Amino acid sequence: MRIGVIGAGALGLYYGALLQRGGHDVRFLMRRDFQAVSNQGLKVTSPKGDFHLAEVRACRDSREIGPVDLVLVGLKAHANDRLVELVQPLVAPATTILNLQNGLGNEEVLATTFDRQQIVGGVAFLCCNRGDPGTVHHLAQGSIRIAEFVGEPGTRLEQLAATFSRAGIPCEACADLARIRWEKLVWNIPFNGLCALTGLPTDRLLACAETRQLIAELMQEVIDAANRQNLSQPIEAPGFIERMLQVTAGMGAYRPSMMIDRLNHQPLELEAIYQVPLQRAAAAGTPMTRVAMLHALLEATENDRD
Amino acid sequence: MRIGVIGAGALGLYYGALLQRGGHDVRFLMRRDFQAVSNQGLKVTSPKGDFHLAEVRACRDSREIGPVDLVLVGLKAHANDRLVELVQPLVAPATTILNLQNGLGNEEVLATTFDRQQIVGGVAFLCCNRGDPGTVHHLAQGSIRIAEFVGEPGTRLEQLAATFSRAGIPCEACADLARIRWEKLVWNIPFNGLCALTGLPTDRLLACAETRQLIAELMQEVIDAANRQNLSQPIEAPGFIERMLQVTAGMGAYRPSMMIDRLNHQPLELEAIYQVPLQRAAAAGTPMTRVAMLHALLEATENDRD
Repeated sequence: MRIGVIGAGALGLYYGALLQRGGHDVRFLMRRDFQAVSNQGLKVTSPKGDFHLAEVRACRDSREIGPVDLVLVGLKAHANDRLVELVQPLVAPATTILNLQNGLGNEEVLATTFDRQQIVGGVAFLCCNRGDPGTVHHLAQGSIRIAEFVGEPGTRLEQLAATFSRAGIPCEACADLARIRWEKLVWNIPFNGLCALTGLPTDRLLACAETRQLIAELMQEVIDAANRQNLSQPIEAPGFIERMLQVTAGMGAYRPSMMIDRLNHQPLELEAIYQVPLQRAAAAGTPMTRVAMLHALLEATENDRD
Repeated sequence: MRIGVIGAGALGLYYGALLQRGGHDVRFLMRRDFQAVSNQGLKVTSPKGDFHLAEVRACRDSREIGPVDLVLVGLKAHANDRLVELVQPLVAPATTILNLQNGLGNEEVLATTFDRQQIVGGVAFLCCNRGDPGTVHHLAQGSIRIAEFVGEPGTRLEQLAATFSRAGIPCEACADLARIRWEKLVWNIPFNGLCALTGLPTDRLLACAETRQLIAELMQEVIDAANRQNLSQPIEAPGFIERMLQVTAGMGAYRPSMMIDRLNHQPLELEAIYQVPLQRAAAAGTPMTRVAMLHALLEATENDRD
């Protein structure tokens, strides 16, 4: 399968590397890592075993990639004003566009231009950071859940899930994109924002009784809003929150992507992870008080960046 | 009048300096500024006119101060485990103890040992920071409101207010200590905490639409809780909030004391300004959701200090 990776951050590099190792023809759109990868290939460190890809097709312009069978979108959502332009040269009538960006509203950006039937959404459960140029560090987890943007799940989705799973990326085909996106937000909204705001990794927030309770309250707000979004089935709050807290405890001193963006003085994905969810929650009559406060604090400190 | 200043931070230095300039025998308990003040006296810069006191009675131990007519307490509330011990040597039967500390619960600490009738509470509206040792910078405002800890306001309170006013410290004798303390909290709770947490001065928080709204919401929560504390008269929310925001806009890029403490890696007054008010609000059936969240974030980052 020919695969184009748009947005070669930690997620794009790691999944792309696994797919190439699995025998696929993977082509990466790269910026920061272009020179290093062109010279030395791509190195992956992982508790599942390090590996190195000596030959990697890195491109600076997506027109060099050309049409592919699968586009894997891992671009930061704050770069969405360029999303269509970057994806366009890769799309033929039979191309599937898999969007693995964080938050809500990203498939809608693709749907302004591309056939809605070609779009698949997905969420990644992946602890992964970029290292020096040409190196990506896989820390833990790595599975993906995918769902059709429109219509029922069918053969295309099952085959896509099988392709990922065979390449070492556990992948589940799901029926309800909104549900898997909101489930991911239950984690992303508290941890990405609180870690970015306070500069503390996940374990420090869980170790403080007040912030541990705050995290559970934020999760409850997200679940209450999610369960008003016509999901196929509701998110069961107490059990889901407990499981998220346990999973996070297992990550140790994890620094979520938004915290790393903040430490690197990069813009944060506030629209997809906070603004759009807040709008949809408000529209459903479930304002998320604490989430709105967290968003306000991130906005105020984001402006400070400039 | 013989006056002892316990807690010679910005507030204690400024008010003590004005009282000495006004002809009173003022004695300061000092730590950081002791050497500088002993050598060079105390310098005050102020939009109302700079001045310098060449001879200042600075003591390292409050036993050197001995009994006074008035104790002025400006100690940071997180040092309250030493409050009684520090004040004790200054107290004779006719001594008045004026507590100008921030937040709630401080007079109660004094009342564990001293006659409740001797205790007066007060809140200061003062923008003031310490400069180099021996220098205090008065930036804006400076008035005080005082009230009896127990019983009705009478001649003692009026005379005390007159003493301050004559020394250039506008002072109002009030009937209800709880009310003036909660009114002050309407400002302190949002601005002290948000500035300390984000590292942004007041004007930056007001310039960001999301945090400006958050500040108003935090104020509303404090007012709702305050109005369940059996105040002599309620705080009228919309007008009071609007006035607080206007006053704060007039302060420019002000850095509240808690922000300065955080920048200097000093402990924050979280108990008096957040914990006790949260407890009293909860006891009155008005949980302050956003205030609790702000407190949690301050606690988590406070632990980071150590």
